[in-house]
Amino acid sequence: MAIAARTEARKLQALPYTDRQAILNAIAQALLDEKETILKANAQDLIVADQNRTASPLMKRLKLTEEKLVTLAAGLRQIAQGSNPLGVVKSQREIADGLVLSQITVPIGVLMVIFESRPDSLPQIAALAIASSNGLLLKGGKEAAHSNATLHTVIGSAIETASQGRVSRDIIGLVTHRGQVADMLALDDVIDLVIPRGGNELVSYIKANTRIPVLGHADGICHVYVDESATSDAACKIVLDAKTDYPSACNAMETLLLHKGTLKNGVAMDVLMRLRKSGVKCLGGPNAMKMGLCDVPAEKLRCEYGDLTCMVEVVQDLQEAVDWIHLYGSGHTESIVCSEDSPAGEEFLKSVDAACVFKNASTRFADGFRFGLGAEVGISTGRIHSRGPVGVEGLLTTKWILRSSSGYDCVQEFSGDNPTKVYTHKELM
Amino acid sequence: MAIAARTEARKLQALPYTDRQAILNAIAQALLDEKETILKANAQDLIVADQNRTASPLMKRLKLTEEKLVTLAAGLRQIAQGSNPLGVVKSQREIADGLVLSQITVPIGVLMVIFESRPDSLPQIAALAIASSNGLLLKGGKEAAHSNATLHTVIGSAIETASQGRVSRDIIGLVTHRGQVADMLALDDVIDLVIPRGGNELVSYIKANTRIPVLGHADGICHVYVDESATSDAACKIVLDAKTDYPSACNAMETLLLHKGTLKNGVAMDVLMRLRKSGVKCLGGPNAMKMGLCDVPAEKLRCEYGDLTCMVEVVQDLQEAVDWIHLYGSGHTESIVCSEDSPAGEEFLKSVDAACVFKNASTRFADGFRFGLGAEVGISTGRIHSRGPVGVEGLLTTKWILRSSSGYDCVQEFSGDNPTKVYTHKELM
Repeated sequence: MAIAARTEARKLQALPYTDRQAILNAIAQALLDEKETILKANAQDLIVADQNRTASPLMKRLKLTEEKLVTLAAGLRQIAQGSNPLGVVKSQREIADGLVLSQITVPIGVLMVIFESRPDSLPQIAALAIASSNGLLLKGGKEAAHSNATLHTVIGSAIETASQGRVSRDIIGLVTHRGQVADMLALDDVIDLVIPRGGNELVSYIKANTRIPVLGHADGICHVYVDESATSDAACKIVLDAKTDYPSACNAMETLLLHKGTLKNGVAMDVLMRLRKSGVKCLGGPNAMKMGLCDVPAEKLRCEYGDLTCMVEVVQDLQEAVDWIHLYGSGHTESIVCSEDSPAGEEFLKSVDAACVFKNASTRFADGFRFGLGAEVGISTGRIHSRGPVGVEGLLTTKWILRSSSGYDCVQEFSGDNPTKVYTHKELM
Repeated sequence: MAIAARTEARKLQALPYTDRQAILNAIAQALLDEKETILKANAQDLIVADQNRTASPLMKRLKLTEEKLVTLAAGLRQIAQGSNPLGVVKSQREIADGLVLSQITVPIGVLMVIFESRPDSLPQIAALAIASSNGLLLKGGKEAAHSNATLHTVIGSAIETASQGRVSRDIIGLVTHRGQVADMLALDDVIDLVIPRGGNELVSYIKANTRIPVLGHADGICHVYVDESATSDAACKIVLDAKTDYPSACNAMETLLLHKGTLKNGVAMDVLMRLRKSGVKCLGGPNAMKMGLCDVPAEKLRCEYGDLTCMVEVVQDLQEAVDWIHLYGSGHTESIVCSEDSPAGEEFLKSVDAACVFKNASTRFADGFRFGLGAEVGISTGRIHSRGPVGVEGLLTTKWILRSSSGYDCVQEFSGDNPTKVYTHKELM
């Protein structure tokens, strides 16, 4: 399955970009044309989920609607409208007279994406893979088995029709059993990147069981640091959004760091009162407990609550906040609230080592769509390749192309006592 | 040691670029000022190597000379002259009115580099790490133990002096025992990237024993494909350079693919005769044996000989050559020899999936210095992050910085039935 995906992906890569765009548009149209088949398959999943007494938020994520399909199709057409991500020259250099080196974007190869309940992820991920000419192996949650199988078939047919048979449906493989995942994690010679989209346990399991590079995040332990220069309104606004907009998201705030000055100017009290009134349980860190800001101590200083709970801690200054974030954060998203002209803002942006660092904006902005990347295949807290929200750009790599137009270049001509050619190393862009 | 390297690297990153440049220049000067100490330590290694009856090529690699130190110092000064690789804005986008997202370059964090006999690698790698503000853990070959220890001390002192104590020598840790390597490979929470520079066995061992991302190459199975449009002179020139310039290098040719047309026009015979006259043993692939081009069959179709041996095979056309390369190559460097106006050249550059793909240039050009990257920390055949020769650029990652200048942005303001703000997603560069 992985080899077939690679073979078909290479065929897709050889086609002109207009053909790839046509395939993306055909997939978008197929989601609309085949909506009845898709919704029928989804209904089967919903019946099983109901029988298993699935919790209501999960049911909501599982359920497809005509409206969701329309939005999905529009998203896919938007991806198709983008410029060709492949063959983009990232650097170009004259090595010697008539010898030009170009670094161009190419697909990574074969991606394996593991995603949980939401079946709308499938067409989005498929579209990102097609746009970047990568082969794809997909493993969805078993609760969406019928929906995923139908979406996979519909997309496969659209690919074959739109490409007039030049690319087969095998470019996207659907893995259905969990046992297959373990087998596939051993295929480090064929699969180039694994992207687990899911909880900490899934990501940790994958990382522990494969030599294939993994792009994703296990923890999302995000901090908001309220500087002493912040107004009460600003602090309340950002902190409330970061914590309560969607508490189970990986980019929600887990820890609130308060500059000691905010205790004197009333900002700390305002923020804590607003949090509590919004139903947020505030657990105290060591200093917060000592100073009497909270009633219940936090058990761990590094915890992803994922619900309406957060930890509160008091720091002496910006440096202590940064040190705390480096010690207990997960390198996902960190935010400062400060007055617009305070030097603390730029200092924070510069000093904090994380995938996303924000000034006076909610941590919840860390997201591929909000960042304007089109769609998102995941958020990475890894430090190499792609960091933070990952869109099409993160599914590309480069290759070095060297063209000689000056009569067949050999390295021996450049070395020894009497070289006949010399390196010029002139940047051409 | 790893935590200290990270801490010191963050301190270095906080300094202005001129300070990093001063440190690099100080290291270069120290290599000259301390040459007697360094050469004395190197002499000790040479005595031990001699007692162990080390082979002469290895002895040559191990030996430092005043000339080598002068060249090294010049290389380091060149790295110092480059523009600041950090803080470079890679993309910038207006997310909404007054909300600007920038993606800027930052160091990866802590690198672990394992290198073999050549002690001159140590200052080069150290310089690349300093230039990019990464912390570094180094493990050199035990045969260069005295040289490495002395170079490490000299460089550490130069860092502390030039930074006026703001960055300690702990930014570069020297690992001396092989047992420590195994321990360090477990530190996936502190070490961000492992770069093994060495043979297949070393790289395979590292990959099998760590969850830390590994940047490097196990195999270098490079092909030269001679198209039917190639002249005899051109083919002989490129093939000879690729095979004989430095046969044990990873970018040397291991397999020669001949278009069947080259058998008719005499090019194949010329190339084989030249190879044999230069002492190259030519082993035949299945077709080459069938057609009577060689006397001895190749035992494996995928083999890194690393000496004056190569495999020869005949292919029907360009597509068969590309398929062969994808099947038996290692994704390192592949080259075509063809006439300048033949469409085969561009087709080869486009179709071949490898880190480096060349037209009418020897595979031996795949090298950080020849590419103009300054120095090289290694060559990667991995498909993510950095591919091919890796210089400073490959030791960087990015972080996303979001600045609000329009009164504290929350995602809730952009959603719901009555959003008060809208996403603009305007590219600013």
